[in-house]
Amino acid sequence: MQQHMDEAARIERARQLYQALAKGDREALDALLHPEFTGRTTEGLPFGLGGTYQGANAMRREFWGQIAKNFIAQAQPTSFHGLDDGRLLVQGRYTGEARNGGGRLDAEFIHILSFADRKINGLSQLTDSERWVQASVSGAPPLPQALRTLTFDVQDGLATICLNRADAHNAINAHMADELCIVAGRCANDLSIRAVLLLGNGKSFTVGGDLAFLSKAKDGELPGLLRAMTGPYHEALRTFSRLHVPIVAAVHGATAGGGLGLMYCADIVVAAENTKIALGFGALGLSMDGSNSWFLPRLVGMRRAAELYLEGRVLNADEALDWGLVNRVVPLADLLRNARASAERLAEGPTQAYGEVRRLYRESLGATLSEQLGAETEALHRTAATTDATDAIASFIGKRKPVFHGR
Amino acid sequence: MQQHMDEAARIERARQLYQALAKGDREALDALLHPEFTGRTTEGLPFGLGGTYQGANAMRREFWGQIAKNFIAQAQPTSFHGLDDGRLLVQGRYTGEARNGGGRLDAEFIHILSFADRKINGLSQLTDSERWVQASVSGAPPLPQALRTLTFDVQDGLATICLNRADAHNAINAHMADELCIVAGRCANDLSIRAVLLLGNGKSFTVGGDLAFLSKAKDGELPGLLRAMTGPYHEALRTFSRLHVPIVAAVHGATAGGGLGLMYCADIVVAAENTKIALGFGALGLSMDGSNSWFLPRLVGMRRAAELYLEGRVLNADEALDWGLVNRVVPLADLLRNARASAERLAEGPTQAYGEVRRLYRESLGATLSEQLGAETEALHRTAATTDATDAIASFIGKRKPVFHGR
Amino acid sequence: MQQHMDEAARIERARQLYQALAKGDREALDALLHPEFTGRTTEGLPFGLGGTYQGANAMRREFWGQIAKNFIAQAQPTSFHGLDDGRLLVQGRYTGEARNGGGRLDAEFIHILSFADRKINGLSQLTDSERWVQASVSGAPPLPQALRTLTFDVQDGLATICLNRADAHNAINAHMADELCIVAGRCANDLSIRAVLLLGNGKSFTVGGDLAFLSKAKDGELPGLLRAMTGPYHEALRTFSRLHVPIVAAVHGATAGGGLGLMYCADIVVAAENTKIALGFGALGLSMDGSNSWFLPRLVGMRRAAELYLEGRVLNADEALDWGLVNRVVPLADLLRNARASAERLAEGPTQAYGEVRRLYRESLGATLSEQLGAETEALHRTAATTDATDAIASFIGKRKPVFHGR
Repeated sequence: MQQHMDEAARIERARQLYQALAKGDREALDALLHPEFTGRTTEGLPFGLGGTYQGANAMRREFWGQIAKNFIAQAQPTSFHGLDDGRLLVQGRYTGEARNGGGRLDAEFIHILSFADRKINGLSQLTDSERWVQASVSGAPPLPQALRTLTFDVQDGLATICLNRADAHNAINAHMADELCIVAGRCANDLSIRAVLLLGNGKSFTVGGDLAFLSKAKDGELPGLLRAMTGPYHEALRTFSRLHVPIVAAVHGATAGGGLGLMYCADIVVAAENTKIALGFGALGLSMDGSNSWFLPRLVGMRRAAELYLEGRVLNADEALDWGLVNRVVPLADLLRNARASAERLAEGPTQAYGEVRRLYRESLGATLSEQLGAETEALHRTAATTDATDAIASFIGKRKPVFHGR
Repeated sequence: MQQHMDEAARIERARQLYQALAKGDREALDALLHPEFTGRTTEGLPFGLGGTYQGANAMRREFWGQIAKNFIAQAQPTSFHGLDDGRLLVQGRYTGEARNGGGRLDAEFIHILSFADRKINGLSQLTDSERWVQASVSGAPPLPQALRTLTFDVQDGLATICLNRADAHNAINAHMADELCIVAGRCANDLSIRAVLLLGNGKSFTVGGDLAFLSKAKDGELPGLLRAMTGPYHEALRTFSRLHVPIVAAVHGATAGGGLGLMYCADIVVAAENTKIALGFGALGLSMDGSNSWFLPRLVGMRRAAELYLEGRVLNADEALDWGLVNRVVPLADLLRNARASAERLAEGPTQAYGEVRRLYRESLGATLSEQLGAETEALHRTAATTDATDAIASFIGKRKPVFHGR
Repeated sequence: MQQHMDEAARIERARQLYQALAKGDREALDALLHPEFTGRTTEGLPFGLGGTYQGANAMRREFWGQIAKNFIAQAQPTSFHGLDDGRLLVQGRYTGEARNGGGRLDAEFIHILSFADRKINGLSQLTDSERWVQASVSGAPPLPQALRTLTFDVQDGLATICLNRADAHNAINAHMADELCIVAGRCANDLSIRAVLLLGNGKSFTVGGDLAFLSKAKDGELPGLLRAMTGPYHEALRTFSRLHVPIVAAVHGATAGGGLGLMYCADIVVAAENTKIALGFGALGLSMDGSNSWFLPRLVGMRRAAELYLEGRVLNADEALDWGLVNRVVPLADLLRNARASAERLAEGPTQAYGEVRRLYRESLGATLSEQLGAETEALHRTAATTDATDAIASFIGKRKPVFHGR
């Protein structure tokens, strides 16, 4: 009884795998992969693609399919090493570009393949995920006229992103997730942008994931469909949260579910009096996404976070203000004016210092007091060297209003 | 002048130690151990037994004595290696079972023994503490009729735990600590349980540690007595906090001291109007236990946490609500009905999703935003594959009320 | 073309460097250092001196100059090792004493020197920074009459520190930063001190950094000037935050900017009705210091922390109370009496237990629940062994008022 395929046979199977992937040959893949195949992919990949995939179908549809949807890329093996335990180590390189914007991809990989019944039943991937993230956000600016679910414009340093599926209460479908990812990348890469304003068209900011879209999933497709949407949406939230410039969000009406992530990643949140904040996941038998589980324990504490999820509590605007989820409540008629005025002021502020403070705050929760004191000293040292600071201190002493140029 | 005993003599001493421990021979132990003996035991051991023990007496009473109280177990050495510096490395295995419930124990150990004046003056222990924890919680279900300080029953998926020392305001003594540990283990291991309700019989939820019991300590016994009680009590809190199912606590009257831990580990806390929350430790010259120092800075912030301890501030129910310590305040007459209704609803909820969210929230505070986004994606992917989620989304679209079966 | 100097030439340059430093010979230093010199110094050094220094001037003025200002010390190399890549590893020892109080310094160092154009263009320093911190705080007690910007006295175990630049609204200049560092060290080292009271003379607690002083900076000097002030000030905050005894702060009027750090490091904050809390940094084009970025996200949450900085929101006393920044609001006329009474009570409390709880709270935010439960058990075990605890429990049972002696 032969326990392991010999090394030459294993290498042959591996070569067939990379050929099938290059051609997108589904039948060849099905023939090569064991039904109990398990894929483990690198945690930091963009679009939420890092993780574990159970079964050949899941790997094909949810991982390779999503890669193909977002990148024109090839995995080129350069060397094969048989391991003593019957596995095969493959070294190689992914090359290609992102479909959105054409950011170039060039990243090394290591795959460890395992085998059973003469088929490939496991692939553990290690790749430089940061290269993938860079490729996915660093492309050319998107053409605003091509956006279907958002509007996006930049004026006087202020980028305005408006969710624009008003007849669906700005429910987030796969298109909107993708487009949020695109405009977030644009905000990160366009140095003329000094502040961002997020808002929603119609009666609500957003009701979260689009249930009408999700309910069309056929048997067994729901997990994959959710992953495909959550992927680019989470990537958008990651990018917004790391932005160097401040974000103002204007929320109103239903502000719910995974859509709350757009509220959390803002610095300043202005809420209309008619705002209703709810999670909604529990009633659908789902856990949560959209960074709710990261922000809620930090913003409202574990006791209230539990109530929002387990008891499905709906907060009105005043309660959200009391709990520290929003910064102020204004009449609906004043919402846009109030939020825009704040965003415009921020777009005229000391952009370097704002960026330093966004980073200080973001890194604070993982730092000791002593580490943070050191980081403050360094950041202060850097901002004190900016023209904005020098001019502003002179203005202060001279009792003049400071003018900032963001440098 | 011989600095070190030779290796054979050290091994002989070690063998005598394991024999004395196996027989529980106190005189032999006293003869073998140096009066300035220091024991260092593995941090994660159950019943708070991990830590440092100064002196042969402390090690005998507070560590080995507590082990014997909670386990029928033996340490069997399998090999001895003399180290260059005069110490002895012993490898072996603990085998036996937990006294409560009979969970089996089988865990490797390494002891490093040091010597002075031909006696053993140090023991550093490393063992697989998780095996000990498992043994202590995984026994057969306890017989409710055997419980002395609690009542415990399970009906329609809801486990109800009622503190039952009403004439002592449910003060926590050694019995109650042990029994909380037993029922917590039962809640963790009985898969028919889908929610837990915690409440107290009589005029108060609990006043915390039983001072009448502690005040009977003879000279020098108080530290050991506290450790022996805190051990199983903390183990109970650890188990409750890691439970896969939601916990509702109903608190009233005095809710104080270490007893607050039972409130913290709940997801939903309903408080009667007459609730008084206080720490009380400062007036006794003690620091704190019961996870107060973990939860207070997170739930109320460091400023208020300091006030509760240093100034002994007592919070009434409305203040506790305002500070985010409880979810709602109800008249005393409605307390049980309100809390039970919530617990019953949760016992009929999507149990898999609840478990995922409990874990997401629990792990959130130690995670970066990016890590947590990844964890959310994985959890959502798993819950989307449950029957509960598929049915609930169909119900939502069909405008029907969802029915959850917890799978 | 010779890429690297040979080893002998590199060692010769290094020897010249240590001679120039010992003599404080600025011209020799300028001749030895490459204009693009980069210094990297050990993170934990006192006075904020750990960090990166770009340029020979920055290293000379902001690092070596500050060392010389605070220490009488010498760097004595004991061995030189050429590295393959053209760098030089120098081992040696710093010896000397702190100028304030004369605490002795004796710390090893490793310097890695790099070279370009036959000059030294890099120095990476590794030293036992804890020795430096100890030296800087462990000197003899300062003479109160020598203090220029503070008053300091100790009575019945209570140390009172009063900011005393009333005509400048207690703005923090370099003198005050230095003197806060001195008195913080005194509080840490004088075991007769059992509580600390912090307050401000005049119309305000403190407006933060002294802008009049900073505005006198010549071109390019502001970053170095800020670093030189932030250094000792942050060191003072670090020391206060690690103090074993409780701190009460009484704040009134303007309480702003980096000066908020003195409020954060207190356990109990009493605010007068006229208190105005503001950050102020944004208007100056600066990021923040004084531990604002560590405490604000923890005390008020990220949403409100962002508002305070980005929108320059000013909080009145009641808002500060509602946000959990202060413990109570009293009329200005009652401020001193109220705060002093609290501090006096704490100075008569169970000092050992207070110290344990300060440490438990401080370490809580970086600990898991399980780790913290273990730490609570250990701390409780230690405090239960104090005379204060034994007496207090007996008093409680005997219905007598406990008397604590702090041991």
